Amino acid sequence: MDNQTRLEKLRHIMRKQNVDLIVIGPGAHMQYLLGFHPHADERPCLLLVTTAKETILMPSLNAQGSRTQTDISFCEWSDDEGPSAALQSALVSIEANNATSVVLDETMRADFALLLLHQLPNATHQFTFDTLGALRMRKDPDEFTVLKQNALLTDRAMQAGFAALKSGITEIVVYQIIKDHFSSEGASILFGIVGAGSNGAFPHHQTGDRVIQNGDAIVMDIGCTKNGYPSDITRMAIVGPAPDGYDEVHGIVEEAVGAAMEAARPGVRASEVDAAARNVITKAGYGEYFVHRTGHGMGIEGHEPPYITATSDTILEAGMVFSIEPGIYLPGRFGIRLEDIVILREDGPEVFSMLPRAVHMVES
Amino acid sequence: MDNQTRLEKLRHIMRKQNVDLIVIGPGAHMQYLLGFHPHADERPCLLLVTTAKETILMPSLNAQGSRTQTDISFCEWSDDEGPSAALQSALVSIEANNATSVVLDETMRADFALLLLHQLPNATHQFTFDTLGALRMRKDPDEFTVLKQNALLTDRAMQAGFAALKSGITEIVVYQIIKDHFSSEGASILFGIVGAGSNGAFPHHQTGDRVIQNGDAIVMDIGCTKNGYPSDITRMAIVGPAPDGYDEVHGIVEEAVGAAMEAARPGVRASEVDAAARNVITKAGYGEYFVHRTGHGMGIEGHEPPYITATSDTILEAGMVFSIEPGIYLPGRFGIRLEDIVILREDGPEVFSMLPRAVHMVES
Repeated sequence: MDNQTRLEKLRHIMRKQNVDLIVIGPGAHMQYLLGFHPHADERPCLLLVTTAKETILMPSLNAQGSRTQTDISFCEWSDDEGPSAALQSALVSIEANNATSVVLDETMRADFALLLLHQLPNATHQFTFDTLGALRMRKDPDEFTVLKQNALLTDRAMQAGFAALKSGITEIVVYQIIKDHFSSEGASILFGIVGAGSNGAFPHHQTGDRVIQNGDAIVMDIGCTKNGYPSDITRMAIVGPAPDGYDEVHGIVEEAVGAAMEAARPGVRASEVDAAARNVITKAGYGEYFVHRTGHGMGIEGHEPPYITATSDTILEAGMVFSIEPGIYLPGRFGIRLEDIVILREDGPEVFSMLPRAVHMVES
Repeated sequence: MDNQTRLEKLRHIMRKQNVDLIVIGPGAHMQYLLGFHPHADERPCLLLVTTAKETILMPSLNAQGSRTQTDISFCEWSDDEGPSAALQSALVSIEANNATSVVLDETMRADFALLLLHQLPNATHQFTFDTLGALRMRKDPDEFTVLKQNALLTDRAMQAGFAALKSGITEIVVYQIIKDHFSSEGASILFGIVGAGSNGAFPHHQTGDRVIQNGDAIVMDIGCTKNGYPSDITRMAIVGPAPDGYDEVHGIVEEAVGAAMEAARPGVRASEVDAAARNVITKAGYGEYFVHRTGHGMGIEGHEPPYITATSDTILEAGMVFSIEPGIYLPGRFGIRLEDIVILREDGPEVFSMLPRAVHMVES
């Protein structure tokens, strides 16, 4: 879908919802709408869109560089002037200076948002969830292609990590091997959790100097970015014999993945998918150890709507891309998370990865 | 300075300025105060500090991992509950639920800030400039040591870039060589502008596939991060003969650097330093081509206060670290920027880099 089509679709949603103005910072939302975003720093830079017009509040030192990327008008401000007058001009130029219903990019810096709201004292605001967020949730075929390529590349990086596992190697060395694999395929690592033994019980473990030992279960949650899109997958490995109780817990998490996959259908609430996974784990007696949501959307950003949580009323639709990643974290022992990114099709989820979710066993 | 001392110094400032509450997101401010910050994503995570107490609003899945890093109490919230009730509890627990004078981390996400302000409807807010920002501006000796090491490392990366320059090489290959040099010294590249010929006239040029040719002046603005601190330097190079008019413009920029260095003394306003550089360039007839401020502070963040702008009333003090980086950008021809990071001493600026600012000439 080209940028112009995306902007038109956004305006269609704005009209339906009586939104006067959408304001976007230099980040993923702007990338989606314009195909680029200017350099993001402390200088306020905002794309302002009404149903009829649009302009960009632009730090003047980025104006020439950005001019090569878009035809949209700029309201420039220099470091000497500061952004306030230019923002006022920008609002006037698109007839939004009396906007009352404003949608804000939730990811923009607090000072950008409050600068804007200060100039629109009568405006109510909401975030992009029902407008631009809703548009971004449904991926188009070009986005699917890139996400699929990245997922297969990430399978190979995971296999490179698997191949490195042995007793005596540190988490960070395995991370480095995965990172190098990403580089070798022209991708950049986005994150790489290698959590051995009790470290695996921290869902967001910081990969470190821990030496992997015989009997360690290892959470490997890795992702890269290439061609403007990310990847994300979690698999489990064990060096040597499985720790006590591992197989039972792995089986429960796998069953939870299966239940969520079964539940995920167009027309279903995201909360029902979370419930499907959570019920399996709760019934098995591990509910308190499943400390996070079942999944998150993925597109330009690694985490974006739809969020698959107990309280999400989002109705799933074909074309949505999200993770299914239940986990059980047993403090002091091990953690198990199994994560696949899927695209929802009319008949259910299609998994991007080709790697089986079975634990990868490494002989001691 | 240890974290406890920093927190005490912050509270001293809060008392003097009658600030009830400071609220910090997971970023550089939190890193400065706590020596770490939890994983930053869309889940609201906030450090809340009053003059007497402090707590952290903490997504529960990050609680165990963060617990190893700080003794501060957590007000946890799970994906299922959402953050609102936990934030209310957090405010009550530190007796800040009736706070009227609040300082917000300007870099936190807009949704974090508005979530907080929604729960404190009677509060006025300001950003950290006069409080935590003021504290962070004056570097302590440990910070100086790291910044100095990073600067010398970056000199070597610049020299690696210089050594690669030749007619026929692309900007991006030079970038890659600089990036690899950073890696070889255990640093990560933060940015690397290699802007050849007319590309150099874009202050924030995106390094790309342009082939460097005889007669190109090349802006090289590079920085890395290591040990939690960044680096930043800009030097000029020319492959083959200098383009017409280059030497005159380089001389003007060098003179502007010198004037700013002369002007920068403890007790002087930042705007006076900007004026010193700007006057040189304006008098030489190039004022309209100096499209940005003279400098920015640098510490945990690559850009932080003090900003050296025409409108900055910040009084410079010994211990402040900032860039002096005037530039002249001639569209379609070339750009020249000369940037040094300095620490202000009682008798004036001490430059971190050991690399001369003279243009690096490469024979064709």
